Amino acid sequence: MFSRKLLGAVAIGALLIAGDALAADKKTIAVSIPAADHGWTAGVVYHAQAAAKEINAAFPDVEVVVKTSPSAAEQVSALEDLSATRKLDALVILPYSSEELTTPVKTVKDAGTFITVVDRGLTDAAIQDLYVAGDNIAVGKTTAKFLVEKLGGKGDLVVLRGIPTVIDDERIKGFQDGIAGSDLKILDIQYANWNSDQAFKLMQDYLAKYPHIDAVWANDDDMLLGVLEAVKQAGRTDIKFALGGNGMKEIVKKVIDGDPMTPIETPYPPSMVKTAIYMTVANLVGQAPVRGTVKLDAPLITQANAEEYYFPDSPF
Amino acid sequence: MFSRKLLGAVAIGALLIAGDALAADKKTIAVSIPAADHGWTAGVVYHAQAAAKEINAAFPDVEVVVKTSPSAAEQVSALEDLSATRKLDALVILPYSSEELTTPVKTVKDAGTFITVVDRGLTDAAIQDLYVAGDNIAVGKTTAKFLVEKLGGKGDLVVLRGIPTVIDDERIKGFQDGIAGSDLKILDIQYANWNSDQAFKLMQDYLAKYPHIDAVWANDDDMLLGVLEAVKQAGRTDIKFALGGNGMKEIVKKVIDGDPMTPIETPYPPSMVKTAIYMTVANLVGQAPVRGTVKLDAPLITQANAEEYYFPDSPF
Repeated sequence: MFSRKLLGAVAIGALLIAGDALAADKKTIAVSIPAADHGWTAGVVYHAQAAAKEINAAFPDVEVVVKTSPSAAEQVSALEDLSATRKLDALVILPYSSEELTTPVKTVKDAGTFITVVDRGLTDAAIQDLYVAGDNIAVGKTTAKFLVEKLGGKGDLVVLRGIPTVIDDERIKGFQDGIAGSDLKILDIQYANWNSDQAFKLMQDYLAKYPHIDAVWANDDDMLLGVLEAVKQAGRTDIKFALGGNGMKEIVKKVIDGDPMTPIETPYPPSMVKTAIYMTVANLVGQAPVRGTVKLDAPLITQANAEEYYFPDSPF
Repeated sequence: MFSRKLLGAVAIGALLIAGDALAADKKTIAVSIPAADHGWTAGVVYHAQAAAKEINAAFPDVEVVVKTSPSAAEQVSALEDLSATRKLDALVILPYSSEELTTPVKTVKDAGTFITVVDRGLTDAAIQDLYVAGDNIAVGKTTAKFLVEKLGGKGDLVVLRGIPTVIDDERIKGFQDGIAGSDLKILDIQYANWNSDQAFKLMQDYLAKYPHIDAVWANDDDMLLGVLEAVKQAGRTDIKFALGGNGMKEIVKKVIDGDPMTPIETPYPPSMVKTAIYMTVANLVGQAPVRGTVKLDAPLITQANAEEYYFPDSPF
């Protein structure tokens, strides 16, 4: 009886030691993202938290920790806090701003952490091990090609621009490349800063100025909401298509429902943060090579494939 | 007692139904790859099986099934068999040959399967949803830049080519771009078909022909083994570096051990199949966007980071 008890105690001791060893081997992935200050970043927060839940349930030796920050300065502090309390095996970061986060992320890297950057690049690309982003040129080009086809290569367009940035430039360039060689003509193109209210007002101006418009490209779904409201209030029937871009769930739902004015969408999905987290896990858990640059496709979202891009529980 | 038994039976019945429902919801990822006919494909088989084991343990609702095929014709049959017995949610395929597999993979896609292609593209790129490959240009360029630096921008080289293919052309182009502008001179460059014995003979020819050689680039690790044997047998002391490419474990081990003649390596890793499987899982499990083309970096492997690329249990 005594020896049996002893054996039992030894066995339990061995289990405890094994348990401790496992805890010590547990790999930490910190995910640092902006707080939900608008629709798209709210989507980023949703998908990062979903990825953490899935990965933490699937891999007992990995812990994904998500931290949101409402400003660049607070994201810098968050990185310091995350690094101070534990060894970070990997950092997945969507930088609030490239300039302010570059040096702090380099400090984390220099401590031996694998760095995955999402969407907005750092000012020094050499810091990142993996970069995951969408394809803004394709957002514009894919939309343009749809319009060329559906309008039979001919028609009058108005376009809304976002905030003057590389992202906006790329979308516009993709769109202009996409209509090149057709008889689609851009009657007007002005900035509305990715803002729904400003887009509403700009669209009212366009409607007053141009008695015939075949299609509107809003370049972004927030602006598209403003455009659609202006068109609705004006009761104009000449406008065949009003299209956006990004993958906002309200717009994807229109595609699912077969809305005639907005039958398609192009993704610049906040769920790209999830792709980045899964790839980082593949490297940490499976030693799979993931170093490099991943530019996700922006395929045309139609009624046939829209479910794949629809997240009814997400804020975006 | 009776009602209790009945309740028990009902509860068990409910569990069985739930079990069936789960089984029906289980998502199947078929992985179709060439059989281990040489070192690199043996590595592909090893990493595909490791990924299947990891994913099947982590995600109870996903089943990864790996099937190896010793010829293109048998891979075509394997696809038919895999599709006949179950609904494939995704297919991860490293095609034995592009020509013979393109139509069979299209048939699988048309049945609603997500298609991930690894390494060798199909003749119609529109079939794939995700394409994962290495960067052969970087394999050559990264190696060349190392030599330019270490030889002080000046020296005599001999180079071995593989089998005349796009892969070989890209590696050679990358190398030539990498030495451009330096005084590194290629004394000779001939084919040895990625074969160790042919590389041994070609290197013997080079050694007989050129009394002074600063470095050899074998373009591939199988050929490098032949080169190293020829250099060893000849007892030549002028050769400072003999380098390969691919990430064969024997060569990565040399880097880990600080071998002076082969202190670096560049990866074209068979573990890319694992990256492809994890990304496909991210899409199926987490609805994460992964459509697009992923070209993995070929960073310089040095003593500092070689452990990351070393798989002692792999055949390659």
